[in-house]
Amino acid sequence: MSAPTPDPKPQTPATIAMSATPTSHADPATKSMDELVALCKRRGFVFPASEIYGGLNGFWDYGPLGTALKNNIRDHWWKHTVTCPPIDPDTGEPVSIVGLDSSIIQNPKTWEASGHVGGFSDPMVDCTETKKRYRADHLMVFIGVIIPSESQDDSVKVMNARYFAFLENDEASLKTALKKAKKAAASLKGEFVDRSGMAMMLTGTSVGQPIDRSRVMGPDATQFGTLTEPREFNLMFETTVGAIKSDENKAYLRPETAQGIFLNYKNVLDTMRVKVPFGIAQIGKSFRNEVTPRNFIFRSREFEQMEMEWFCAPEDSPKWYDFWKHERMRWWESLGIAKDNLRFRDHDVDELAHYSKMCVDVEYKYPFTAPGFGELEGVAHRGCFDLTQHQTHSKTKMEYFDQERQLKAKEEGKSKEEIDAVSKYIPNVIEPASGLTRAVLVLLCESFTPTPDRKGSAYIMSFKPKFAPVKAGIFPLVNKDGMPEIARDLYLKLRDKYPVEYDAKQSIGKRYARMDEIGTPFCFAIDGDTVEKGTVTVRDRDTTAQETINLDQVENYLDDKLKA
Amino acid sequence: MSAPTPDPKPQTPATIAMSATPTSHADPATKSMDELVALCKRRGFVFPASEIYGGLNGFWDYGPLGTALKNNIRDHWWKHTVTCPPIDPDTGEPVSIVGLDSSIIQNPKTWEASGHVGGFSDPMVDCTETKKRYRADHLMVFIGVIIPSESQDDSVKVMNARYFAFLENDEASLKTALKKAKKAAASLKGEFVDRSGMAMMLTGTSVGQPIDRSRVMGPDATQFGTLTEPREFNLMFETTVGAIKSDENKAYLRPETAQGIFLNYKNVLDTMRVKVPFGIAQIGKSFRNEVTPRNFIFRSREFEQMEMEWFCAPEDSPKWYDFWKHERMRWWESLGIAKDNLRFRDHDVDELAHYSKMCVDVEYKYPFTAPGFGELEGVAHRGCFDLTQHQTHSKTKMEYFDQERQLKAKEEGKSKEEIDAVSKYIPNVIEPASGLTRAVLVLLCESFTPTPDRKGSAYIMSFKPKFAPVKAGIFPLVNKDGMPEIARDLYLKLRDKYPVEYDAKQSIGKRYARMDEIGTPFCFAIDGDTVEKGTVTVRDRDTTAQETINLDQVENYLDDKLKA
Repeated sequence: MSAPTPDPKPQTPATIAMSATPTSHADPATKSMDELVALCKRRGFVFPASEIYGGLNGFWDYGPLGTALKNNIRDHWWKHTVTCPPIDPDTGEPVSIVGLDSSIIQNPKTWEASGHVGGFSDPMVDCTETKKRYRADHLMVFIGVIIPSESQDDSVKVMNARYFAFLENDEASLKTALKKAKKAAASLKGEFVDRSGMAMMLTGTSVGQPIDRSRVMGPDATQFGTLTEPREFNLMFETTVGAIKSDENKAYLRPETAQGIFLNYKNVLDTMRVKVPFGIAQIGKSFRNEVTPRNFIFRSREFEQMEMEWFCAPEDSPKWYDFWKHERMRWWESLGIAKDNLRFRDHDVDELAHYSKMCVDVEYKYPFTAPGFGELEGVAHRGCFDLTQHQTHSKTKMEYFDQERQLKAKEEGKSKEEIDAVSKYIPNVIEPASGLTRAVLVLLCESFTPTPDRKGSAYIMSFKPKFAPVKAGIFPLVNKDGMPEIARDLYLKLRDKYPVEYDAKQSIGKRYARMDEIGTPFCFAIDGDTVEKGTVTVRDRDTTAQETINLDQVENYLDDKLKA
Repeated sequence: MSAPTPDPKPQTPATIAMSATPTSHADPATKSMDELVALCKRRGFVFPASEIYGGLNGFWDYGPLGTALKNNIRDHWWKHTVTCPPIDPDTGEPVSIVGLDSSIIQNPKTWEASGHVGGFSDPMVDCTETKKRYRADHLMVFIGVIIPSESQDDSVKVMNARYFAFLENDEASLKTALKKAKKAAASLKGEFVDRSGMAMMLTGTSVGQPIDRSRVMGPDATQFGTLTEPREFNLMFETTVGAIKSDENKAYLRPETAQGIFLNYKNVLDTMRVKVPFGIAQIGKSFRNEVTPRNFIFRSREFEQMEMEWFCAPEDSPKWYDFWKHERMRWWESLGIAKDNLRFRDHDVDELAHYSKMCVDVEYKYPFTAPGFGELEGVAHRGCFDLTQHQTHSKTKMEYFDQERQLKAKEEGKSKEEIDAVSKYIPNVIEPASGLTRAVLVLLCESFTPTPDRKGSAYIMSFKPKFAPVKAGIFPLVNKDGMPEIARDLYLKLRDKYPVEYDAKQSIGKRYARMDEIGTPFCFAIDGDTVEKGTVTVRDRDTTAQETINLDQVENYLDDKLKA
C-alpha cells in the first residue's frame, strides 16, 4: 500500500480562538426532512426496517449511530427520573421514583380495564377498489373535480364528476395530488377543475357542502374506488398466546407502557419502601397499528416510550401537575433544544379524555409542522381513573392508607369519618408520557444544520456533546512517523470512559467532514508536534476552531466539555 | 411521632478487619428456587406479569431492583462488546463492532428466508380430555400403570391400564407425578405399579417398547384424556400489520434479534467505516410462544437477548470461533460467577442445525439443573447460511469484496481466478447469542445465599458490587442530632454518580438486613462521630465487617470498590 499523501497540518492554536460563536440551531422551518432522512440513512442513524425486502410501512431500524443517540437520551431520562429525580421545592428533598420493566404482552384483561379494547381506535374508511384503508381524519377531500368531456350531456357530466381525496393537509401532498388529478383527468379525456380552495375534511366539520362519499376516490387518483363510511378500527396489535388460536387466548401488544405500571402499583407499594407521593418510571417498546404511519419516525407502528406515573393524594394533584409540567420542559431544554422551538399547549376541555382533568402537551417545532408545532410529550392529570378501573376489574384493592394524613387529622381533632376520608384514598395520577424515539427525532431535527459555506461537509449534526453518538475522533495526521501508535494509545485510554473513534484513513479534512456529519463534537489530531512536544490539536465541530493542548490533558478536556 | 430508639452504635474499626473472608458463593445445588422466587417477589426483583389478573403463563415483570440489575448487565455487555470490544491477539488491535437496534416486527419475508416460518417449531401433543397441549419432547412416559381392581377380569384390566405422563425429566417432577399417580390409583380402586425405571421419551428414541398413545394420559394424572400424535407447532407469535386481517398482512414478533442484524448487514457495510472482519451487536426483546414456559425466567415467552454477529472470511472462521468462545466465557466470569458453576458443552455433530458447522454452549449450574448444567449462551459457527438465504430471498447481493485479500493474492502472483476466489465471498458468521434475562437469572441464582447463622437477614444477595442494583445505603444512625442532614448531603452528592439509597427509618440492624437481602454491598452509617469528627462507618455486606473512614473519602472508597 502506498502511504497516504500528507494532509495540510491542522491550523495551530492562537490563530483561531476557541471562543468563536458556535453554530446556532437554525429554525426547523428552514430544514428539509428529505435531506435529514437521507443523511440519517447515509450515516447510519436510521434505516427503513427490512429494507432488503422492500421495507415494512411504519417500522424503522436504528443504525449504529441512531442506537447510540437513543441510548444516550434513554440514560439521561432514566438518570433524571429514577436515580437522580428532581427536588420537591416544598421539602427540599428529592422526590421518590422507582424504575420498572414490565412485559409487552400482559393478560388481556388489562386492556379491557384500561379501556383500550373498547375505545382505542381510529375512524377508518376503505377504498372499494384498492381495498386500502385510510384514517378518515387524515384524509382530506377535495381538491378538484373531473368534469367529463364535452361528448357527454350535462347529467352524465355531473354523474361522472369525481372528487379527489388526498392524505395529509400539507403542501407537498397537495401538490402531488394535484399532479395526479390532472393526469387522471387527461386519461379520462375530461377537464380538471382545481377546487383546492374548498378543501374540507371528510369527517368532522366540513367546509362547504356535505360530501357524497360515493364520488370520493381513494388518495391515489389513478384508482377509481369510492370510500366507505368511516368505522372504528382498534389500534392494538393482536396475537395469540399458547398453542390454540381462540378468543380465549387472544392477547395484545401493549399500546403504551403506562398500564404495566398500574398493574404493578400494588407490588411496588408492598415491596419497596415508598409512600405516596411517589412515582414508577418505565422505558420500553410500545406498538400501535397506525393506519397512516408518517413523518419518518414521528408516527411509527413500533416505538419506544418513556413514561412515569406519579401517584399522589387527590388534594395535592394540582401542585404535582404543575411541578411535572415544568420539570418536563426543563428536561427537554437540557437536551440542548432551543427554547424557541419548544412550547406548552394546554388541552381544551373538549379535547380531554373523559377521565382526564387536565392535560398539557410539550410541543416541538418539527420541520414538517413549522411554523406550527407538533406533539412531543403529554403531561396528563389522569385522576384516579386507571387504578379504579383495575380495582374494579381485578378485585384488587388499590386504596392507599396514608398514615401521615391520619396522624395530622387526629392531631387536628377531626372526627373519625373525617379522618377516614383524608387517610384512605385511591391515589391520583400525574403522567408525563414521552416518546424515546420521538426524542431521537427531535434531536435529529434540532441538530441537523446545513452548512453550505463550509468546506468539506454539507451538513453538521450539532448535538449537545453529551448526546453525541461519538464524543471524539482520534486522528493521526498521517499513518506513520510514530503518530498512529500515540493515537492508538490515546484511543485505548479514552474508550474506557467515552465512545470515541480512531481513524487513520483518508485526508484529515475528509475525516473531519465525516465527524461533522455524525455530530462528533471534538477531534484530536496527533501530529508531528505530538511526537516532539506532546501536544495535540483539538478541533471544534461547530466553529472548526482549533487549539493546542497537552496530550495528557485530553481526558480532562473531555470531562470538562461533557459535564453539562 | 416519637423518635426512634437509638440503636447500638455500629462497631468501630479495628475490632473487625475488612479483610475478613467474604461469603463465598454456595453450590447452586444447595439453593431452593422456591425461596429465590419468593425473595425476588418480596424484594422487588421479579413479579409475575399481570399478577392482579391471575398472571399470564410465561411472562414476567421486572421490579425496581430487577430492572436495575438487568440494566447493569446490559450496560456491561454493551461496553465490552460495542464501545470497548476485546483485542485481537494477532494484531494487538481492538476488534471492530457496531451497535444496532432493529424492529421487533420485520417484513415477514425475513422469517421465510431465515427458515423460521418453515422450521421453527416444536413437536406438540394434545390431551383429548383437557385440550391442553404439551411439548412432546418434554413429556416423559411412563412412570407406572394402574392395574384395575380385582373385580375385573384380565382383559378389562389390561384395557383399563393407564400410563402416566409427566412433564420434565427431573426428580421433582417425577416425585410429584408419582404422588399423583398413587392418589389416582387409590381413587380408581386400582393398584399402582411403579415402573419409573422404564421411563422413555414419548417421541425420539424410546427406551423399551413403543407407546400405545391411547393409553397415555395427560400430565395431570387425575385427568384421563389420551394424547394425540405429535404435530409441529410454530413458536413465532403472529400478528397483523395494517387494518385488514389477511394472510398478506400477517407478520411475526421476532423469535431472535439475530435476523435484524443480517437484514442490516449491507446497510452497516455501506454506511459505517467497517471492513470484514467486523461485528454487529444488538440487545432487545424477542418472543417465543413456548408451549411449556418454565423454571422462573429461564424459559419465558417474552425475553431479552444480547446477540452479536461476527462477519469474517471463511478461512478465518475457525480462529474467530475459538476467539469468541473464550471471550464469552471470560465475560461471564467477569460478572462474578464462580468458575465451577460455568462450563463449555460442545454440540455433537448430530445436534447441529444443518447449516451450522460448530456450536458450543456456555452452561451454568442452575439450582434446577444441578448437579447438571443448563444452557446460558450459545456460540455458533453459522457459516454463510443466513446471508446466503437473505441474498436468495431478497435478491440483494451479500458478497463482500475484500481489497486486502485481493492485494495480497496479487502480490503472491496468483491467477485472476485465484484472486477472485479469495477476494469475493459471502462472509461467514460466528454468533455469540445470550439472553439478558437469563443473565439476570444466573446472577440471582449465583448471588442468592441463605445465611441461617446471620442475625437479621435470612438471605444475602452477594452480587459483585458493580452489578448490585443499589451500590450503597446511607443511614443516619438516628433521625436527629444533625445526622440526617449530613447523611442527606452525602446522599445527594453520591447519587449523581451511583445509585444509592437514603434511609432513616427503623433500627439500623433492620436497615442493614434489608440491604443484605437486596445485595447492597456497602452501607455508610452517619453517627455521633460523623458530627464530631467527620468519620463514617462502612459496613460490608458479605462479611458484616465495619471500618471507619473519613466522610470526604466515601466517594473515593466507592470508586475504588466499584472499579473491578
